[in-house]
Formats: sequence, C-alpha cells, structure tokens
Amino acid sequence: MKASQFFISTLKEAPADAEITSHRLMMRAGLIKRLAAGIYTYMPMGLRVIRKVENIIREEMNRAGGIEMLMPVIQPADLWQETRRYDTMGPELMRVRDRHDKEFVVQPTSEEVVTDIARQELRSYKQLPKNFYHIQTKFRDERRPRFGIMRGREFTMKDAYSFDRSPEAAAVSYQRMYDAYCAIFNRLGLDYRAVRADTGAIGGDLSHEFQVIADTGEDALVYCPQSDYAANIELAEALPLLDARAAPTQALALTPTPGASTCADVAAFLKLPLQQTLKSLVLACDIPADEAAGTPARAQVVLLLLRGDHDMNEVKVGKLPGFEHGWRFAHLREIEAVFGSQPGYLGPVFAGGRPAGLRVIADRTVALMSDWVCGGNQVDTHYTGVNWGRDLPEPDLVADIRNVVEGDRSPDGAGLLAIQRGIEVGHVFYLGTKYAKAMNATFLDETGKPALMEMGCYGIGVTRLLGASIEQRHDARGIRWPVAMAPFSVVLCPIGMDRSEPVAQAAQQLYQQLLEAGVDVILDDRGERPGAMFADWELIGVPLRVVLSDRGLKEGQLEMQGRSDEEAVKIGADAALDAILSHLKSAA
Amino acid sequence: MKASQFFISTLKEAPADAEITSHRLMMRAGLIKRLAAGIYTYMPMGLRVIRKVENIIREEMNRAGGIEMLMPVIQPADLWQETRRYDTMGPELMRVRDRHDKEFVVQPTSEEVVTDIARQELRSYKQLPKNFYHIQTKFRDERRPRFGIMRGREFTMKDAYSFDRSPEAAAVSYQRMYDAYCAIFNRLGLDYRAVRADTGAIGGDLSHEFQVIADTGEDALVYCPQSDYAANIELAEALPLLDARAAPTQALALTPTPGASTCADVAAFLKLPLQQTLKSLVLACDIPADEAAGTPARAQVVLLLLRGDHDMNEVKVGKLPGFEHGWRFAHLREIEAVFGSQPGYLGPVFAGGRPAGLRVIADRTVALMSDWVCGGNQVDTHYTGVNWGRDLPEPDLVADIRNVVEGDRSPDGAGLLAIQRGIEVGHVFYLGTKYAKAMNATFLDETGKPALMEMGCYGIGVTRLLGASIEQRHDARGIRWPVAMAPFSVVLCPIGMDRSEPVAQAAQQLYQQLLEAGVDVILDDRGERPGAMFADWELIGVPLRVVLSDRGLKEGQLEMQGRSDEEAVKIGADAALDAILSHLKSAA
Repeated sequence: MKASQFFISTLKEAPADAEITSHRLMMRAGLIKRLAAGIYTYMPMGLRVIRKVENIIREEMNRAGGIEMLMPVIQPADLWQETRRYDTMGPELMRVRDRHDKEFVVQPTSEEVVTDIARQELRSYKQLPKNFYHIQTKFRDERRPRFGIMRGREFTMKDAYSFDRSPEAAAVSYQRMYDAYCAIFNRLGLDYRAVRADTGAIGGDLSHEFQVIADTGEDALVYCPQSDYAANIELAEALPLLDARAAPTQALALTPTPGASTCADVAAFLKLPLQQTLKSLVLACDIPADEAAGTPARAQVVLLLLRGDHDMNEVKVGKLPGFEHGWRFAHLREIEAVFGSQPGYLGPVFAGGRPAGLRVIADRTVALMSDWVCGGNQVDTHYTGVNWGRDLPEPDLVADIRNVVEGDRSPDGAGLLAIQRGIEVGHVFYLGTKYAKAMNATFLDETGKPALMEMGCYGIGVTRLLGASIEQRHDARGIRWPVAMAPFSVVLCPIGMDRSEPVAQAAQQLYQQLLEAGVDVILDDRGERPGAMFADWELIGVPLRVVLSDRGLKEGQLEMQGRSDEEAVKIGADAALDAILSHLKSAA
Repeated sequence: MKASQFFISTLKEAPADAEITSHRLMMRAGLIKRLAAGIYTYMPMGLRVIRKVENIIREEMNRAGGIEMLMPVIQPADLWQETRRYDTMGPELMRVRDRHDKEFVVQPTSEEVVTDIARQELRSYKQLPKNFYHIQTKFRDERRPRFGIMRGREFTMKDAYSFDRSPEAAAVSYQRMYDAYCAIFNRLGLDYRAVRADTGAIGGDLSHEFQVIADTGEDALVYCPQSDYAANIELAEALPLLDARAAPTQALALTPTPGASTCADVAAFLKLPLQQTLKSLVLACDIPADEAAGTPARAQVVLLLLRGDHDMNEVKVGKLPGFEHGWRFAHLREIEAVFGSQPGYLGPVFAGGRPAGLRVIADRTVALMSDWVCGGNQVDTHYTGVNWGRDLPEPDLVADIRNVVEGDRSPDGAGLLAIQRGIEVGHVFYLGTKYAKAMNATFLDETGKPALMEMGCYGIGVTRLLGASIEQRHDARGIRWPVAMAPFSVVLCPIGMDRSEPVAQAAQQLYQQLLEAGVDVILDDRGERPGAMFADWELIGVPLRVVLSDRGLKEGQLEMQGRSDEEAVKIGADAALDAILSHLKSAA
C-alpha cells in the first residue's frame, strides 16, 4: 500500500470524552471515528487491524472444527420469547418493530437463532458434535457506553455454539474451544490469563473468561502464582482465614463510640485492629406470593456479616439459598423497623433476643472469630468482646460471601492468592441443556429416543481486542502493535523522496521486494517532513520503520528501528530485505 | 475441507413459499435458511460463496483506488434528517429508538454517514479524490419481501462513495467505478449488461445499472444490437414512430362500439389495426396550496394519450413539468366530472370544446398520427377518423411518455432496439452536490475558498448476486456455479471409501495434492452411496467432480466430469492433478 492511496488521519489531541489510553490513542491514530454514543466507524486504518484479528480467529476456529455461517443481525422476537430472554434481558436488548408492527431484536448474541437451526438441522446423534460460529455485528444498548470500543454499543463479536450428545462430549467441545482461544490470544501476542468465571445471566454450569492483563481493566483477576488456579474475583472462593474458633477471653460490653460509624473509625477509636471488627450489611430478599398458603409477596430482611476489612461479593450473595427471587439493599425504614437503630451502628446482638423474621448470614471467617466488635443497635455505641454462642445465637447460615483479598490462601491449597486487573476479551461457557430445554432442541440418540442437546457457547470481542491490546502495549508516543495485529507490518519512510531520485528509486525498489515477499508494507509517499512522518507512524504503532535518506544511501545504508527499540540500526541497502524479514520473524 | 467436518444439508423438495428457481435451489442446496420474512441465515455452504464474491469485489475495488472502512449498522436519525431522507424514505427505512428514546435507523445505505465523515476529514482539495467503501449488513423493510435473498430485507451490500473537487474529476471517479464493476462481474462469470438508468429517489444526474441477464429478472433492459446503446426501460428514450403527421383522409365520425372498452376490442370491432387507436389514461397531479394567491392544495386532471399498443412509462411521466409534487391515477368521480363518461370510452375530443382545467399530454408518436380512433366520451361509442388541429386543438404537451418496445429505433440512430430481462446487481450514480449541499460538505479549493464536494455512490448487492447467478446458471439437477463463485471448486467422490483401502488412500492423496496446489477442494468422506453423493453435489453446483472407484483405480484411472458436461472423461490416476488444474484453468 502507498500512503498516498490510503487514508491516514492522525490527531495531535484526543477528544475530551476519550477517558482511557486506548480510546485516546485509537481516536488520535485515526483507527475509529465516533458516530454516536458507543457507535463508531472503523476507519481504514482500524479496519485493517480488525481484519487481521478476524482472520486469526477464523483460522483457529476452523482448525478446531468450527464451521462458519452468518446469522442475521435483525432477529424475530418470538425466538427470544421461547427462552424468556426477551423479558429477562432488559433494556440492553435493542428492540425494534417492522412496518407490520412485528417485534424484532438487534442481536446482542445468537443462542436462540443457532438453537433454532440446530433443532431443525441436527436430527441424529450421527450429526453430533457440531460447532457453528459467525463473526457478526452485535448491538448492546449499554446505559453508559464508555472507553471507546471497549464498552461500545455496536461491536463485532465472534460467537460460536457447540452441540453435543452428552455432558462428556460437551466437555470435549468445551476444552477444544478453550485450547483454540489460547492459540488465538497467543497468536495475537497478548499477555492474558484464562480465569474461572461466573456464568451469570447466560446460564450454565462452567465458564472461563479470557482476560487481557492491564491495569486499567474493569475486572479483578485472582490467581495463585504457585499453581494454575485463576478465577474472576466474582467467582474466586474465599477460604476462612481462621482454622477454628478460639475460646472467649473478653466479656461482652456495650461501649460508647461517639461518631464512629465505619469499621475503620471504630477500630481507630477503640485502638483495636480492623480485623477485630464486624461489618453489618442489611439486605432484603424478595419472597414471592404463595397463593396456596394465602401469603402475599414480601421482603425478608437479612443481616450479612463480614470482617471489617472485607468486601461483600454480590455474585456469591446472589447465589445463596433464599436469594433466588432477587434481592436489594434494605431501605432505611426496613432497617429501623428491625434494628431500632440506623446504619453505622448495626449488629447481630440484640438485648431482647434476635427479632423475629431477621435472618443472619455470616461469612466463613466471621463465623470463626472470637472477642469481636460490632454495632450496638443504638446510635454512637458498639459491642466489644462479642462471642458466638455465649452472647448471641449461632448465625442462620455460614457461607462464602466476600471478595478474595491478596494473601488469601488459594482454594487449591498451593499457596497465597494474588490479584491483578484484566479486560475480558473472550468467554467460554458450558450451557448444559438450558437452551435446548427451553427451545426443545432434541436429537435421536443411539436408541432412537429423543434427547436434549448439550450446548456450549464461546465468544470473542473482536473490536474490544483492539482496545485491550492497546491498553497493554503503548508508550508516550503511541500504540505498539504486535506484528500479528498491526495495520501494516513495516513502514518505509523515504526522506525527501520528491527531491531525490536515488531515495525515490530505492524506496520503490524495496517496496516492491517487500510486496513480493508477502510483507504487509506501506510506503509513506505523502512527502511529509521526517518529524511529522515518524510521529504519525509511532502513534499508529507500526512495528518496524525503515528510513531511506540520501546521506544513508550514499553510504549504502538504510536505518531500521523496531517500534519498541530505543535506537535505529543501520542495515546495508543490499541486504535490507533479509534484515527486515528476519526482524519481523523474530518479532512475531 | 472434508465433508465430514463441514455442514451439508440438502433437501429433496423446496419449501412451498420459494417462488423462483434461485430461491428453490438455494434452499434445497442448504445455502440459506429462513429466519423470518426476508431474513435469512447464510449457512456454511452459502457463506463460502458470499466470501468468494466479497473477495473479488474487494480486490477490484482496491485496484480501482477504493479504501475500505466499516460504517455502523445502527445510525443516528439526526444525520438522516439533515438530508430529509428520514422523512422522505418511508417505511422501508427501519427506525428504532434506544433506551434513552433517541431515534436511530438500521442502515439501508450510508450516504449520510460517509458524507459526515468526509466533511470532517476531507478539508483540502489536496485530499481529493477519495473513494471510501464498505461491505456491510443492510436492512430495507420491504413491504413484500420475496424471491429469497433476491428481494430480502436484511442483505449484504458493498457501497462505495467518491468525493471529488469538480464535476470533471467526479466523471473520472465514476468511470473508474464503472470499469471496476465490469471487472468484477466479468470475474464472477456473469452474463450481464450495463444500462443507463433512472437516478430515482437517490437523486443525481447520471447512473448505470449492472443487470444480470435472466428471463426471470424484474427489470426490462433495452439495447441496440448494432451499437452499445443500453438502458433500463424506465429510462430508454422512445423515439416517435412516424416522421411527420400525414394529411387527414377520413372524416370525423362518432361510431357505436357496444361493449368494446379496450383498444384491442375497439380495433377488432372496427376491423382496424391496433396502431390506429389511442389509449386515454387519466391522471391527477398534486398542486400545492399557494398561500400568496390564497388557493388551497388541489389536483389537476391530466389526460395522457398513448398509441393503443403502447404502455405508459411511469418514470418518464413522473418527470414531466407539472408532476413535481406527485401524481396518481384519477379517481372515478374526478374522471366523470371532467369527461361526463367513464373509463373505456374516454378521449380528447369534446363536442363542447375541451373542459376548462383539463390538461392533455400526448406521446410523441400520438402527436404525429392521423385518422385515429379514440373514446367518444359516451359509453359504447368511439370517434373514428380523428385528426389533430381539424377536430380538436393540438395537445398541451408532446412528450416521451411510453415504454420502448422491441423494434423501436435506437435513440443513437444505429439500428432497432431489442429488450431482454435482467436482475439488477449493481448500480453506479453520479450524485453531483446533492448530499454535499444538504450536509454542507465542503473543502478548500486551490484558491482557499470553500467548495461543495462532488459525489458519486456505487452499490453491489453481494447476497443478491448469488440469486442472480443461479437464475442464469442452473439446470434440472441444480446450480451450475462458475469456478469463481463456487463454494468448492472440486469435489472428490470416493466410492466405497470405508470398504476399500486403495480408494481411501488414493482419495486422501489426491486431496492433499489439490490442497497443496491451492485448489478449493472438498473430499466427500460421508460414506454416502454414489447416487445420493452425486445428486448432492450437482444440486450444490460444484464445477468439477472427480470420482475414485476400485474398478477405475485397478485400471489406473479416475473419472472427471464438469458440472455442465454430458459425460465423464477418464483420466490417468497419475496425471489427475494436472488434468484437474487444467480443467479449472480453462473453466475459470
């Protein structure tokens, strides 16, 4: 490609609404252009990167037995009603009516459509396993689109769906996709981690997220440096920090703690370690009406107890028994009705015994603590020296309800946990028969009887990958693409090409040689001055720059500099092709 | 590709709603699967064809200087309001609101978005010309989607947009796209014709349609076999069939024609040639209110006169002076009020003189006729021997308002016109400054002054091309793809592969050789019986079949048969690769 025949549009300054580095650099390098909130045009430079990513994904998906198809963007609502996602997905699902007032959705993903195809097309166990995938435009009407294409509304996703005859066979399909994802992210030159993850709204039993490691990532990843344990913090199991409950050594006392309403305040006031305090959170669980018993829908108030330095894990809490029908934080009036006090001074110790209808759930660590401190259920007071059994009944439920923290023991017993930030770029799910059951997707098994298909689904955020890679690989001058993703592998920068015939000739000749060698090269024939030319290509992030100048050519030399190299190296003009090829090979 | 690792799903019968051959064959060959009216999934077999078409388009677009980008599917309504297309496009434009109740459209095309990009990015004449294109999913909410993907609602289109500094430069860009389109359709192996076309709702001054020749086509194409004149019938100029008006030879007479209400009936009744009769059509043109003059909006009744054997051309009529604000066929009460008679017996001759407010427009041929026959403005009567000037005033306007018919003189004077049917698969438009003006897309010219960009737009219906090719190339057994579009170029059909080691080995070896030679080959290892296997591949339309059998291999031979060949030819097993390559080369 010659720059004069391409479209290059770099900016000195990023627009004010670009919050994070990757968004700023993508705008400045002219990779994307904003059309509306969370909706971007992929400019020619950006589309080249997308196509390279797509091709790598496609090659590895095909190698793993995936079969590519293309499902529609606009999908009829009735399929989405079969799985009830039309109702459960909320406003992120973009809905649209056609001229005949029929309901459709703009697809955020394609479980329904692919399952509809499978139930029509896959009739016998002999046709299984099958793995269908497509790379298609998706839409998710995010409430607050942000970070450019990292959390946009319109985006490109590769989604794959596997169909199997048994859970064992589905596990093989799952593992094959897991391996393919590793191959893809390796080829893309990313520093990533596969972590166990919650299956969330999509349902199912087992899932892994593929997270690109970056300090700016929205997700916290928990891993054990001594083993291969790795999980999203939403899922990572928090073991109790104590092995057994010690015997009480202090007497229960109601102590004034004027104005100290947080655990940190109380610990400081009482000159006790924060780890001696308890955090009391009050939730309300929905309990649906029971028509047979004649009871109306109501809310059950729940007191959640965490050690003062720990945070609640909403995903774990959501999975507790009794939380199936939904939950929220309790309203102030509900709290006051049960505790007779207000937040900041709440606790599980009641002078008159635990109120009827209050459920107490303690974190595993909390259940093993002795001589602890909690709110006194009166403003400006706390209890100290509290002990389970002696001062209050045991909790109704002991469970893992907190986020892991750095230094926690690894659930596999191999060492202590560490935490880093990540950007989710891929997700593999074992779905079981959730969708097959909802849509009656059956096949005839070996005995001729209908059986539900075992499914998996597997997504990669194609456009998000660009942002994730940039978050991981950039410097003050711009993007540092790996060769596999770069819009061009090599840029030839001839200096004074319009004035110097030898420079023009050498540039043209090397350009032709590189094209013939299959190198994705761009010749910058725009006639820009060296400073502006170099700054553009450093911003855009092309991995290798080759400079041709009159002075260099007189000495038979060119200058070559990798995007991450501090200095240029001189290479012989005659051996330039080999030098470039071997640099690219070592960088790939 | 091995068939066992791919997805093949053929049907004996097409679904009942598949009306035309291409739709039936695409469904039967498993290329597409219906999701909703006019919305199809491209199944693995169909997607392979789409990708081949896309790649050819991409290569030729790039060669012609096009720069690929990717504009969003969901586009904000405000841009569409700038050009007023949000209001003028009607219900074909799918509209959608996001969670914040903002209005968007599902793009049917991208003039607005690309012009918005151009007005931001192309600031100087030095940046022109530019040609941006993308290959993207489009949606057009057709009232009656039909013919499978030929007139579907969701479809894939390549749309390109050129920006130039002058009409002369825009003409160069236009010609470059015209040439690129010829290259594309030639490479796709299509029998097509480029015809001058009406610019329609998209606006602009010059356009050509690229029409694939097929008897089932919706469009009529007019061409002159003696020259390169070719136009869509909507646009093709109809010259008068007489050179001058002959002097009257008959007297005017009001003749009873009981029950003869069509020109054909009248001609038969009077024993005159149909060419002696006049067809009277009554239209009503909208005339908007004139606030200054204090006149309200009203309809002007227009009598259109055509020779009895000619048909009205609605596009030509729509461009007549006085038709700018819209028109329709007159209502019966309007006709009766003006003519005092009813359709079937209408004409331009009034005993009491032409009614006030009636406008008479005659086709060019009609204006030169003598001694003609028309309705008597009384039921069951016609005038005969009518002559302009003597029996009635000259028409208010003489114009070309009819469709060309076979045998008309070519407008270029080179011979007589012929007509064939076509399927529109591409369209190039010179838009002038229509969009640039509406959206204020200017650049600074050589003198530093802002000037409006001259634009062109250029579309190819990627998915429609599949249907068009099939309409042109099929037989009783199925599709006959050209090599360039075929999902696979060659299918290897080993007979009894599971029972015969030599067959399995030879098939595997030839398969590897073909892969290594870069041939897009599929090995049918499904274990089907020969009849079923051959029928599948003939239906799917793979251009070349190679059969390996025990008996043949014993004689050192394979059988090779082109999809359109009557008989198979025997080829030596050792020379099979060369024979296949040379067949493909000659077929390409």
